[in-house]
Order: sequence, then C-alpha cells, then structure tokens
Amino acid sequence: MTFTLILLRHGNSEWNTKNLFTGWVDVDLSDQGRAEARRAGELIAESGVLPDIQYTSVLKRAIHTANIALEVADRDWIDVKRSWRLNERHYGALQGKDKAQTLAEYGQEQFMTWRRSFDVPPPPLDDDSEFSQAHDPRYAGLGADLPRTESLKLVIDRMLPYWESDIKPDLTTGKTVLVTAHGNSLRALVKHLDGISDADIAELNIPTGIPLVYELGDDFMPTKPAVYLDPEAAAAGAAAVAAQGKK
Amino acid sequence: MTFTLILLRHGNSEWNTKNLFTGWVDVDLSDQGRAEARRAGELIAESGVLPDIQYTSVLKRAIHTANIALEVADRDWIDVKRSWRLNERHYGALQGKDKAQTLAEYGQEQFMTWRRSFDVPPPPLDDDSEFSQAHDPRYAGLGADLPRTESLKLVIDRMLPYWESDIKPDLTTGKTVLVTAHGNSLRALVKHLDGISDADIAELNIPTGIPLVYELGDDFMPTKPAVYLDPEAAAAGAAAVAAQGKK
Repeated sequence: MTFTLILLRHGNSEWNTKNLFTGWVDVDLSDQGRAEARRAGELIAESGVLPDIQYTSVLKRAIHTANIALEVADRDWIDVKRSWRLNERHYGALQGKDKAQTLAEYGQEQFMTWRRSFDVPPPPLDDDSEFSQAHDPRYAGLGADLPRTESLKLVIDRMLPYWESDIKPDLTTGKTVLVTAHGNSLRALVKHLDGISDADIAELNIPTGIPLVYELGDDFMPTKPAVYLDPEAAAAGAAAVAAQGKK
Repeated sequence: MTFTLILLRHGNSEWNTKNLFTGWVDVDLSDQGRAEARRAGELIAESGVLPDIQYTSVLKRAIHTANIALEVADRDWIDVKRSWRLNERHYGALQGKDKAQTLAEYGQEQFMTWRRSFDVPPPPLDDDSEFSQAHDPRYAGLGADLPRTESLKLVIDRMLPYWESDIKPDLTTGKTVLVTAHGNSLRALVKHLDGISDADIAELNIPTGIPLVYELGDDFMPTKPAVYLDPEAAAAGAAAVAAQGKK
C-alpha cells in the first residue's frame, strides 16, 4: 500500500514585499500570494491528485492559501486540522525587522548564521514586543512551550511529533493529505522524508505556491522522488528563494 | 458548568436571488451573502463570544460564510469539522426548480406541504438529474445513506446523531462551538434544544447571517432563552424568511 502526501508552501505575503522577518507574526497574503494560491489550486485540480483532508498552521497566510487553493480545486468541503506545530520558524527578536537593515547592522556572517544555521536561534523576542505572541489567544494553551525564538532544529523538534501523532494516522486511513505551511516547517518535514543532513538542509529551497507530491510506502518514507506539479516553475521559484537572502 | 453554542445560518446565495429550490445543490454565496457573513463576523467580534472550533456542512455557502465571518472576527485559525449531516434539507425532485413556477404548477397546498410539513418529503430526485449528488465525490462514503429527498423529520434523524457524537463532546471540553449551516439543519437543532413540537417547528424562521448564542447546562439543554447578537435585525430577518414562501 502507498500513501499520498501533498506539501504546499504559502505564497507571497505583505511582509515578503516589505522584506521584513515575519516568523510567527500573523501577516496576510499579498495579491501576488493570493494569485499563487489560485495557481496551486489549478495545479491540484489538473493533476487529479485530490486531497481528502487539509492541514494548516494557525497563521493566516497558510490558512488563506489553503482556502483559496481548495476553493479553486472545488475541494473546500474537506476536513481541516490546524496546529501551531506547522507554523513558520519563530524568528525571535528579528521578527518585524527589515532584512536588509539587519544584514547591514549585524554583517553577512551573523545574518546568514541566523537565517541558515541548523541550530543557532536568533536572540529571543521580548514578551512586551508588538511582534510577540505571548498574549495571543491562539497560543494560550501552550504555556511554557510557547517559543520566543527557534532554530530549524527546534522547528523539527516541535513539528515531527505532530507528523507522528496526527498526519500519519490520517495517511493510514488512505486519505490523501494536503499540508499547507511555511518554508521552514515544510523544510523540517522534507528533511525527515528525504533524509537530508543537518549540513545540507540549509541549501534546500522550497518554492512557494507549487504543490509537491510524495508517494509514501508502508514505512511512511518516499517510494520515489517527490514531484512538483509544475517542475519548471518550481525550479525557478527555488532559485528566487535562494537569492532572497543575498539581496 | 455551562457550555456556549453559536448557530449561524448562511446568507443569501446565488439561487436565493433566482428563487430556485437549492437543497444539496452546491451553490455559492451571492455578494449580499458575503456581506451578511462579514456582518456576522463583526457581531461575533463585538460580542466577545469567540468560537474555539467551527462546524460547517459540506456545502460551500456555509463553508464560505464561516470562512468570511471567522476572518473578520480574526478567528480563522480555529479547527474545523465538516459533515453532510449539517447540510440543508435535500429537496428531492424540487432541487433546481423555480419556486414560483412550482407553486403555480402544483398549487398552494401541495407547495406548502413540501415546504413546511414535518414528515412529507418531496418526490425523490433521480440519480441522473444534473442536480443529483449521486456521483459527487464528497458523498462517496455514504453509500445507501445518500438521501434522494428529505422531510424535516429525516433531517433531524441524520443531524441529531452528529450532535451527540461530535458537537457535544467538543462542548464538554469547554470549547465555544460555532455551527454554520442551513435553515433546516439549524431548525432541526433548535427544535431539539428549545423543545418545539412537530406542529410548531414549521413556523420557526431562523434569520440569515445573525449569530444565535445558546448557553447550555450540564444536560446540554438551554439554561435560558438563546440570544441573537443583533435582535432587531434578527426579527426583521425572520419576518423576511417567513414571507419568502408566500411570494
């Protein structure tokens, strides 16, 4: 028996355009991001790989991407599960800061360490910051688990338990699962599925708005390489993401 | 301990405007319906009665009402469950038919029997009809349970088991539950909660787009009369619905 998993990274947000670190700040999609979501829905509909259940983070840029894509694919009647465990990496004190300004202020080395190192988180975000989630009702149940900053390693540590506890059981029932989430939460999952090393994962760039389809075997590991539903656009998109930090 | 339940009937759809029987046909909201949904979201936000989980039918006029209302109320990050058991009444062979034409063709008595009798369903819809759901993938799991027509009694028979199996357990955990559904599936629930007789339920008109808030006791029955979040608009809306069949 094989299982089908679709990963979808949300499109351009209002803060991508402004070149700000976003992380857990709940910024909505830009018009371009909504167009990317519609395109993702068309690709899903055309492929015939139709999700039976959707997972999203609790951030609206992922939620709205899923809503739009599924409406376009005429699948918005499927069940939905959401979790903070699928959220983007918490960028700590960088949240709300201009990327170019941060680069200028801290220098290329420190900047790239925060962006791409596997296990060095940025400085923690103060609970009094306007960009903090310490008083956000959606995280009220987390208590001391609420992150104030995260490395990619910490994202993996909070994401993979959810893969085990929720997503895998849904796959087991034969459902095609769509996970709509973020650059780093999806990178965490892809690292696990494709067995990418801690050193190499920094170089993996997942393009926005292009569904990535995995066929998984009984061990919930890929039976063959995953396929982007629009491979040409995916290659161009990954290159664009890679260039982003170098602006 | 008390529990909080919010009921919301979707707003005007594309076929309300055309005066067609809709039932299980998956018609989208009209612009007016989307405006009603936004208003519902404002009322929820202003009231401070904030849902922790949302239930919808599998029909897009309810799904989109919930999506819009929760986005406006900044609660679109809550979990979602959907079920055909919350669908509108299946209108059988009347689905897709013009209401005024049906009235002219069959006469006032037959017309009102189909619309308002407790247990007389319209003639069943043929599986070959363009308005049938017999080949719709969202109902593929139903098998012989797929309705071809329903009376209000049959709606109650398929809705209340879901109230017991899913909604009540979520209330038990202390979650405020929002149910976004349809005139007849909500009427079925209100009949149960308010102990309305088979004879009287026909006269109950639930207005569209105005959240109705129940406080329930340990027995999951109301501790006091339910409250519309905009009582004046609710009274006007109910009168408008009552007048609808008399056009």
